[in-house]
Amino acid sequence: MRGLVQKKIKQIEKRREFWEYFFEDTLIQKIANSKKAFIPEDIDELVSRRLKKHDGEVYLVGAGPGDKDLLTLRALQLMQKCDVCIYDNLVSSDVLELVRRDADMIYAGKKRDQHTLEQSTINGLLIELALSGKRVLRLKGGDPFIFGRGGEEIEGLMEQGISFQVVPGISAANGVSSYSGIPLTHRDHAQSCLFLTGHFKDGVIDFDWPKLIVEKQTLVIYMGLLSLKEVKTNLIKYGMNKGMPVAVIQSGTTHNQKVVIGELRNISSKVNQARLKSPALIIIGSVVSLRKGLSWFG
Amino acid sequence: MRGLVQKKIKQIEKRREFWEYFFEDTLIQKIANSKKAFIPEDIDELVSRRLKKHDGEVYLVGAGPGDKDLLTLRALQLMQKCDVCIYDNLVSSDVLELVRRDADMIYAGKKRDQHTLEQSTINGLLIELALSGKRVLRLKGGDPFIFGRGGEEIEGLMEQGISFQVVPGISAANGVSSYSGIPLTHRDHAQSCLFLTGHFKDGVIDFDWPKLIVEKQTLVIYMGLLSLKEVKTNLIKYGMNKGMPVAVIQSGTTHNQKVVIGELRNISSKVNQARLKSPALIIIGSVVSLRKGLSWFG
Repeated sequence: MRGLVQKKIKQIEKRREFWEYFFEDTLIQKIANSKKAFIPEDIDELVSRRLKKHDGEVYLVGAGPGDKDLLTLRALQLMQKCDVCIYDNLVSSDVLELVRRDADMIYAGKKRDQHTLEQSTINGLLIELALSGKRVLRLKGGDPFIFGRGGEEIEGLMEQGISFQVVPGISAANGVSSYSGIPLTHRDHAQSCLFLTGHFKDGVIDFDWPKLIVEKQTLVIYMGLLSLKEVKTNLIKYGMNKGMPVAVIQSGTTHNQKVVIGELRNISSKVNQARLKSPALIIIGSVVSLRKGLSWFG
Repeated sequence: MRGLVQKKIKQIEKRREFWEYFFEDTLIQKIANSKKAFIPEDIDELVSRRLKKHDGEVYLVGAGPGDKDLLTLRALQLMQKCDVCIYDNLVSSDVLELVRRDADMIYAGKKRDQHTLEQSTINGLLIELALSGKRVLRLKGGDPFIFGRGGEEIEGLMEQGISFQVVPGISAANGVSSYSGIPLTHRDHAQSCLFLTGHFKDGVIDFDWPKLIVEKQTLVIYMGLLSLKEVKTNLIKYGMNKGMPVAVIQSGTTHNQKVVIGELRNISSKVNQARLKSPALIIIGSVVSLRKGLSWFG
């Protein structure tokens, strides 16, 4: 067998490693238990299994809405443990400061259509870095599985045999709701809550408008500032009360949080007057009126 | 003035405190600036303001879905700082162990209709304890502003001049989504996500069914196990594909997590076979099919 392995693995270091881990492979144990003789194909298999081994892994982690105190304990642990951190524009600088000092930092962009790295490049990079043995932190604003395209980024990992974990983050809707004093559900006001994104690839909003007009339902629109006027016009057109309370919140949960309150009929002009900027979150529904008694932050 | 104050405040300690803080009251400064003479009503006002002062406060905190590592840093800080903790049934025991050892623990119940403390009792307790100078932690499973009735519990605080803060938690939907490998949104599968509760006071589900049938929308139903059959029957009746993938998850994010995957047509019997128990979360939508490549936990 030694001769066969020598032919397969040229580097002496790698060969030493192969023998070191030889008896740990579950395949060896299987062959031993079966009491059959070794065949060259077994060696081929063992060698290729060993060469594939790596300790790299991927952590897909939600960084929350901005306030670093809203990171989860798990997120912080993994941020302190990673070798490389690939982060988006939406991750706050306060949060980035908590990433391990020695980690390589890679900026993936994602400022509205102006992606520094293409989505496919990011996906490929995660695989490449993990296969090279790195602990790769993919840090995304909010929650990775809510409007974060997190699912797409890790779709290739399992196929490649790369271990990974997903850590939920406080999504913008939840963070902003607490810090603006606007519950998303409430017995008297809303018994359901719909999350939408106002950010469409081709700029055309294709909501099924009549289905958005539901009694006692809160609407939350992510990245919706640029489409606010169109949203408002259509909601009124399809039957929502013009006096429906609306809140638009910029930089929610941070010390730059700005909250503009209005009604469907006048929210666009109020937002313009206040010069709000993206990214902002829009909350539409009678729960917005609760802010009067619940606003505690800022 | 001394005579007036003496009549109003009988305890010598309290009277000493009144004079100690006398010049710090903004009302005194207002009167001084106005250059009018003092009138007895000013003293009344000053005394009642002083007697109201207390250092108690309320922290309404989301404890997340179960795994203690999903607590936020802020939640942990406040858990370590409180004098009293009022907690619900949905807060996991792992999380409760992290509350400051010296804190008084009060169980508020909330096991499906079987509330140990009435809602109004909880609301009143928060006020009473805070006014007595306590730092009161109101700890709720998930996020306090999503199906948590958190808004209702703190509605009276501002009126009473009690300071409070609200700390969002990882909501069950987000926690379960990450730990079951089912993204709630995804470019190819869902561009919106609707959160509903299947737990109704009188047992009658009053969803606006036709509006639940929306292309590329994920439905998440909290506390929906008991109404699963009715939900499924109605969704099919109003036009949802019988083959729509469904996941039901019990004890999500904990080591007891159980995930049952099926289609709308057969999910009820699968859930019965697996003997799932409440509380459980239901995810309906084509995103459920992504779990095959994204399931990393357990």
